[in-house]
Amino acid sequence: MTAMRATAPDLEHELAAIVGAGHVRVDAGARTVYGRDATPQYQGVPDAVVLPESAEQVAAVLRLAGERGVPVVPRGSGTNLSAATVPQAGGIVLALTRMDRLMELDRENLVAVCQPGVTTARLVAAAAEHNLLYPPDPGSRTTATIGGNVSTCAGGLRGLKYGVTRDYVLGAEVVLASGEIIRCGGRVMKDVAGYDLVRLLCGSEGTLGVITELTLRLVPAPEDAGTGLAYFDTLAAAGRAVSRVLAGGVLPATLEFLDRTTVRTVEDFAHVGLDTDAGAVLIFGQDGTPETVARDMERIAEACRAEGANDVTVASSHDEAEAILEARRAALPSLSRLAPMTILEDATVPRARLAEMVERIEAIAARHDLVIGTFGHAGDGNLHPTCVVDPGDGDAIERVHHAFAEIFEAALEMGGTITGEHGIGLAKLPFLEARLGAAQVALLRRIKAAFDPAGILNPGKLGS
Amino acid sequence: MTAMRATAPDLEHELAAIVGAGHVRVDAGARTVYGRDATPQYQGVPDAVVLPESAEQVAAVLRLAGERGVPVVPRGSGTNLSAATVPQAGGIVLALTRMDRLMELDRENLVAVCQPGVTTARLVAAAAEHNLLYPPDPGSRTTATIGGNVSTCAGGLRGLKYGVTRDYVLGAEVVLASGEIIRCGGRVMKDVAGYDLVRLLCGSEGTLGVITELTLRLVPAPEDAGTGLAYFDTLAAAGRAVSRVLAGGVLPATLEFLDRTTVRTVEDFAHVGLDTDAGAVLIFGQDGTPETVARDMERIAEACRAEGANDVTVASSHDEAEAILEARRAALPSLSRLAPMTILEDATVPRARLAEMVERIEAIAARHDLVIGTFGHAGDGNLHPTCVVDPGDGDAIERVHHAFAEIFEAALEMGGTITGEHGIGLAKLPFLEARLGAAQVALLRRIKAAFDPAGILNPGKLGS
Repeated sequence: MTAMRATAPDLEHELAAIVGAGHVRVDAGARTVYGRDATPQYQGVPDAVVLPESAEQVAAVLRLAGERGVPVVPRGSGTNLSAATVPQAGGIVLALTRMDRLMELDRENLVAVCQPGVTTARLVAAAAEHNLLYPPDPGSRTTATIGGNVSTCAGGLRGLKYGVTRDYVLGAEVVLASGEIIRCGGRVMKDVAGYDLVRLLCGSEGTLGVITELTLRLVPAPEDAGTGLAYFDTLAAAGRAVSRVLAGGVLPATLEFLDRTTVRTVEDFAHVGLDTDAGAVLIFGQDGTPETVARDMERIAEACRAEGANDVTVASSHDEAEAILEARRAALPSLSRLAPMTILEDATVPRARLAEMVERIEAIAARHDLVIGTFGHAGDGNLHPTCVVDPGDGDAIERVHHAFAEIFEAALEMGGTITGEHGIGLAKLPFLEARLGAAQVALLRRIKAAFDPAGILNPGKLGS
Repeated sequence: MTAMRATAPDLEHELAAIVGAGHVRVDAGARTVYGRDATPQYQGVPDAVVLPESAEQVAAVLRLAGERGVPVVPRGSGTNLSAATVPQAGGIVLALTRMDRLMELDRENLVAVCQPGVTTARLVAAAAEHNLLYPPDPGSRTTATIGGNVSTCAGGLRGLKYGVTRDYVLGAEVVLASGEIIRCGGRVMKDVAGYDLVRLLCGSEGTLGVITELTLRLVPAPEDAGTGLAYFDTLAAAGRAVSRVLAGGVLPATLEFLDRTTVRTVEDFAHVGLDTDAGAVLIFGQDGTPETVARDMERIAEACRAEGANDVTVASSHDEAEAILEARRAALPSLSRLAPMTILEDATVPRARLAEMVERIEAIAARHDLVIGTFGHAGDGNLHPTCVVDPGDGDAIERVHHAFAEIFEAALEMGGTITGEHGIGLAKLPFLEARLGAAQVALLRRIKAAFDPAGILNPGKLGS
């Protein structure tokens, strides 16, 4: 920051003139709540929390912040897991949750137009009413906003077949740090007029601009879906089954795994009927026409058996399918009950090295005397090693940091990455240069400066 | 350019020291041939044509060019249609066609790794040998290189269901203008570590860096494919059929249209058996399992009949399918025989406004007394209005420029864009600000400067 920070009462007054006094909060409660997101161990304290209702208000807030040199941290519901929306430098938290209009579901063009504060679940439900699907389905979808999904390039369980949030953003209205409002992309399936700012914004974590409107691509809803579960003695066998499924020409809608620790913990807490002797569980699903679903489910089941699955179940009813999916959904909540603090990571490796990576994680956990359960998206090579500790145990916390540093190092050694879908935020920033190299990190800083020369947007994060 | 241009003999000598004398060409023939691409009416004259064989050589060329302030225009086969690789400012044409190694087809990870000079057709054929599909299929695929495809974000006939080149690029090795070599993305399906440089490079037309290696995503090859054709009295009826198909939950692999002028011209020259009384032709295709193909083809045919198609044919043999596809493939070659010069454009509109846009084009063609046939990707709203003229007729050329300016204006009015898949290059640069607005164009310039502060990479194009 080059300019001095405005004193809080001045700033509050000027912000209130923009968004209305009822939409600026400086009370200790708001400053505490909006000082954190879903990432343990990170807490900032903003000077003010501002809830705008239009792009024009966002622009006015950014102009004011620019004049005063005050940081602005845009956010939605704050469900991210990398401390990407923690205002560690203070300033303004710009919460976009009031901008929650779902303006249009355009069936002819298979497009939705909405403000950033719409929750993912609401968008999905609205699309479903028109027999359309918005495929990305991050675990936080009932709470998370679509603006936050885009800013983090959220993934989820359908990544292998359907891709991630980036693949469904066609256009965006964006307020730049200068207060200028630009529109990128639009209601067109193809557009190569200019650099691809739409995708550059995806995953930029509020450091390049503030998204105030989105145009999203939808697809026809599949008619049918199937769900199945297979037990394996080892994760290596489950990994080979994944390769066999893909080599056989099937691209499943879902292909999730739970490791031994996760299977046992889920069963202990959620009692979904899992076999706790299993070395690994693969949960698989396909969608499409009833014929495709039936055929692909059988092929996936066959591939699992061919790789030595002990038991393979294909759900024959909605309830059975829900019971299987519940096992996957219960992974994080169950693990998190083992200790007061849960640290969820998302190292990613080339798909074929998934099992090898889980073995490395197990060895690292043992060496540091930690409980780490790993589950995630087998089809994407996207692992969620989850460590549970007592936050009061300083020594354990220290060991967790060492363990995760080793996990990231292992992922990079295998040609993987430090984050598949959770983002960099504050939490992964120390590892970014190991992933990208110094020249690329320097380039990111120059790109950030091209958007935000004064560095007011989410400073101290990506691009800083 | 801030520095003086090196004299040609000095430059030639220094370039030869980097790539070998046999790979630097300064003869008039090479300087003419590499002075143009597939865009009529654009011709530059480079000082030298350089054919490197490694990223290190590319880096050395860029460092030298940077020291001397010499422009560098990277290119593959030069099949682009927007004069994106015309060296209008002279300097070095960096032809990457010698870098044509296809290093790896990784079946387990569904990934190909190759150098930029591999042709699209070669990649597609290599993938097919492993029962895999590389979906993007630009019309130039037998000649065009994959590096050029990425640099222009090439589209093609499968866009509706499969997306475009951007959707298949996972990683890239890139030489920056500084000569630094960076690696973005990789063999991972999900990666949010840093800004999305991989997609930013897609469609950046050689203005941000030189791609020296690509990691591409492949999908399992569909088992079966079907092709069909429907005649309509009007393009409006064909457009309604497209909407009906999509609203019915089918996402066809191919959904192409030919307007009245194109139908007649194709039949006149290619004699494929088209009914020349037709107001419009829709060519449709689906791929997948045999059951899905059979069912979807019937659904598409039904939707066409419901919207008044006079005649609907679903090919029952490979030869019949080829005959139908030949009608689409013959569109550009046939139109181009009507006059010595063919100007092919690619305005794009929201899908539901396709027929309206074709009517606007017809009216514009009539007003300017021009022959414009329009065909293209109905499922993407991506039109290829194609104007044929005698290049010696200065008055007609003038009218063509006016007509296309009006066509772009009409596309923008309808919420469309000035280019769906051909790019900006030199040809569309005058229209870029109308599409993006002054603030966004200024932002593109700052992004360009973040990558290439001295402006040596393809100057005078995107970002200049």
